[in-house]
Amino acid sequence: MKDVQGWIDERQIAINKVGIKSLKYPIAVLDKDNEKQSTVAEVDMYVDLPKEYKGTHMSRFIEIFNEYHDKITMGNLIEVLQVMRERLNASRATMEVKFPYFIKKKAPVSGSEGWMDYQCAFIGDCNEDKGEFILKVKVPITSLCPCSKEISAYGAHNQRSFMTIEAKYKEFLWLEDIIRVAETSGSCELYPLLKRVDEKYVTEFAYDHPAFAEDIVRNAALKLIDIEEITWFRVQVENIESIHNHSAYACIEHQK
Amino acid sequence: MKDVQGWIDERQIAINKVGIKSLKYPIAVLDKDNEKQSTVAEVDMYVDLPKEYKGTHMSRFIEIFNEYHDKITMGNLIEVLQVMRERLNASRATMEVKFPYFIKKKAPVSGSEGWMDYQCAFIGDCNEDKGEFILKVKVPITSLCPCSKEISAYGAHNQRSFMTIEAKYKEFLWLEDIIRVAETSGSCELYPLLKRVDEKYVTEFAYDHPAFAEDIVRNAALKLIDIEEITWFRVQVENIESIHNHSAYACIEHQK
Amino acid sequence: MKDVQGWIDERQIAINKVGIKSLKYPIAVLDKDNEKQSTVAEVDMYVDLPKEYKGTHMSRFIEIFNEYHDKITMGNLIEVLQVMRERLNASRATMEVKFPYFIKKKAPVSGSEGWMDYQCAFIGDCNEDKGEFILKVKVPITSLCPCSKEISAYGAHNQRSFMTIEAKYKEFLWLEDIIRVAETSGSCELYPLLKRVDEKYVTEFAYDHPAFAEDIVRNAALKLIDIEEITWFRVQVENIESIHNHSAYACIEHQK
Amino acid sequence: MKDVQGWIDERQIAINKVGIKSLKYPIAVLDKDNEKQSTVAEVDMYVDLPKEYKGTHMSRFIEIFNEYHDKITMGNLIEVLQVMRERLNASRATMEVKFPYFIKKKAPVSGSEGWMDYQCAFIGDCNEDKGEFILKVKVPITSLCPCSKEISAYGAHNQRSFMTIEAKYKEFLWLEDIIRVAETSGSCELYPLLKRVDEKYVTEFAYDHPAFAEDIVRNAALKLIDIEEITWFRVQVENIESIHNHSAYACIEHQK
Repeated sequence: MKDVQGWIDERQIAINKVGIKSLKYPIAVLDKDNEKQSTVAEVDMYVDLPKEYKGTHMSRFIEIFNEYHDKITMGNLIEVLQVMRERLNASRATMEVKFPYFIKKKAPVSGSEGWMDYQCAFIGDCNEDKGEFILKVKVPITSLCPCSKEISAYGAHNQRSFMTIEAKYKEFLWLEDIIRVAETSGSCELYPLLKRVDEKYVTEFAYDHPAFAEDIVRNAALKLIDIEEITWFRVQVENIESIHNHSAYACIEHQK
Repeated sequence: MKDVQGWIDERQIAINKVGIKSLKYPIAVLDKDNEKQSTVAEVDMYVDLPKEYKGTHMSRFIEIFNEYHDKITMGNLIEVLQVMRERLNASRATMEVKFPYFIKKKAPVSGSEGWMDYQCAFIGDCNEDKGEFILKVKVPITSLCPCSKEISAYGAHNQRSFMTIEAKYKEFLWLEDIIRVAETSGSCELYPLLKRVDEKYVTEFAYDHPAFAEDIVRNAALKLIDIEEITWFRVQVENIESIHNHSAYACIEHQK
Repeated sequence: MKDVQGWIDERQIAINKVGIKSLKYPIAVLDKDNEKQSTVAEVDMYVDLPKEYKGTHMSRFIEIFNEYHDKITMGNLIEVLQVMRERLNASRATMEVKFPYFIKKKAPVSGSEGWMDYQCAFIGDCNEDKGEFILKVKVPITSLCPCSKEISAYGAHNQRSFMTIEAKYKEFLWLEDIIRVAETSGSCELYPLLKRVDEKYVTEFAYDHPAFAEDIVRNAALKLIDIEEITWFRVQVENIESIHNHSAYACIEHQK
Repeated sequence: MKDVQGWIDERQIAINKVGIKSLKYPIAVLDKDNEKQSTVAEVDMYVDLPKEYKGTHMSRFIEIFNEYHDKITMGNLIEVLQVMRERLNASRATMEVKFPYFIKKKAPVSGSEGWMDYQCAFIGDCNEDKGEFILKVKVPITSLCPCSKEISAYGAHNQRSFMTIEAKYKEFLWLEDIIRVAETSGSCELYPLLKRVDEKYVTEFAYDHPAFAEDIVRNAALKLIDIEEITWFRVQVENIESIHNHSAYACIEHQK
């Protein structure tokens, strides 16, 4: 059978990224408390293509991911990217693995337990000289508006917010540790299961810790600067405003 | 050219609905204040297909919608459905036209103005004997938790909520009137533009009107029962909880 | 602490459904080949609320689901619904558990293996007299247009389509068996991993089995009528048309 | 009333972007054929915030956009960004206005007409020294696999694809011209309304123009290089594969 992808291409234009997008796959990731966590991923895998070749070989991406899917860690992402570069004759390989990640969480007063979900991603970009890795988490938190509290006789508008942290790092970072940065930077953190004593606690805690989107990204930035392992980060906050039908947003990007 | 769709089908199974889905199209709808409003729609149009025929003629759906797209009202939806039944030789025709709808709204104290968006839909279902029409609106509102307020020393968790109302009616209903039912049934309504005096107002107003998802659907149900034009309704509320990463939900369906 | 939810409500309007929506949770479901499959779910759980009571107790829904999350089957869904009715003092309980489900699948010629994803759901609705259960699957397939093939000198437009089957049944149904109905009703089935010999096979197979959306729902309907276990079904097909920016759609609903 | 946002912030961390996100608003944009087109937008507007200040003034973003919403062009985006910088005392302002855009399109043989939808965006980024503007379009096209055609006895798998082009330019670019680049770079273009003679035409045209995702981005890149007005572009293609449940993807980024 003809290898159409291997034909010489005469347009002489190199392609930056070519590969597969939005592959849904079962995966297992490293878990701080339970060793391994089974979840499901959406995966993008790309390599570059020199200007001489007509196409890449798409089925090889799936074969490679299939070999690694039950042991995905930030550690072996480097290995996967090297295998991609070799088997696809590419100089650069990039990859993003997005997945929901669950942590067992206790309510602050009653101690009632349930699983809390976080959207996470491992992102890797690798050429012959160096590799760059990004850990990404999207964490739901509560924000309570300082202006609303200050100017009102009682009450204060609050809402669900989402903090997204992307971080480059030296050796190793736990998802759990980055998630804690997010959960401790807002007006209050969220819980899967709250009894009445807990609801009183989180209501008063949020009222005692008013924070604009601006405050929340700054709180997180200070913590991320203090984590020595991290070399670069971007932190974003989006407040699903309870008084508007649009969001309030803030973003800090920092290179150490 | 052969008419493959017109071939006789030997499986002898009638099809309930066949047609086009997710057509995006510019439309103009009737507007209470400004006569006509330009917006964009996502359209589904279906007819039934007798067991004898292999297929319907998909291009005719587009032709029909194209004739009516710049004057879509609940009034002429009946006409469109009749044209669908005729030109596609069908006994039944159904249609849903979803679109964002905008209303100019003044802030409660400062009077500052902006446009507020609402997700709306016209839904029609028509056979030779009768037609059924549903007006649908999805309205963002504020909800403030009565339990959180009652048990806490200060503050109360609140959040953005969405009320969805579907209503069948006798002669005519304005989108604006159904939207007002939703906006007056929660703890507070939302605004596109709030100055500081307005923010104080909505914060205190919400605190003065705590309401569970259960309260909000009941408040709306009472108002919808009172509108004589309405013969059936379903009202749903979803609170994007500020203390959880899941929603609270309530629904009432009522046949008069 | 006050039980605000337990207060008497004077509006005297019963609520059809109240509970939690869009809870994300890790689950394990029964698997035909491997006994148990770990995946992640989005869960809605509702009960009815008599007209006397102000509110339901939202945290109990999470507690109940947490007890069952690592062994969700269509079999114990009945048990969960009974527990919901008891602990929430309700006469009716409903529940939907949506999750991606993976099946290992071999390419048709080379036998190359990978995991294929399907969107599935268990749906239950239960009162004191009876329970109703629906199995739901959304399966990607290929459709190739018979009209395009017939009237063109060569080629035929084809595309990814999605078949959604919902089925009520007597005793027990495997997800795998309903998924096979969908995969064998289109022009061709999809695979996670295809080598060149497989690509030739699926291309020719699809060209040899042209089918309108209308044909595909009828093919599936005939098979579902033949499965004695099934008492009711609805089958929908949506073709993500390669020649249009809207979809072609067909639906058959059948009560035995 | 206190100006909480104006308070001095002691954390001494500047914020890169702060503002509003996902504002839905009615807009009018410049149209090559009809002068002005009414549509609906989703808008993000951000400024930077010096390290001294606690917060920005969110309501001013809405006020500014409200002044300009009925005459949004790439031309006056510069003006909006300058107004944002002034009224919010910022050195940098960025903005993205996303909207569906419609073009009347004739079928290739019958000449039958309908409106075709495209996802577009105006993106601007402006500081005291310079402004950068990006035009973005997402265009649905057909792709037909050259490998599938070459190795199969008959037929060839094809599917809906989406080409996304982002372009920086010197003076002025019509959305219509960039959309044409996308529509002429795939195996065939899409139409809102096709009669049988047209369906024969597009089927054969696509079969005569097989193209991988790699070919399609290269075809577009060559055309974009030739448009002198353009100084930088990124072109991405995603094929919604008809034989897989994931996409094929390719991307070229080019600085002139």
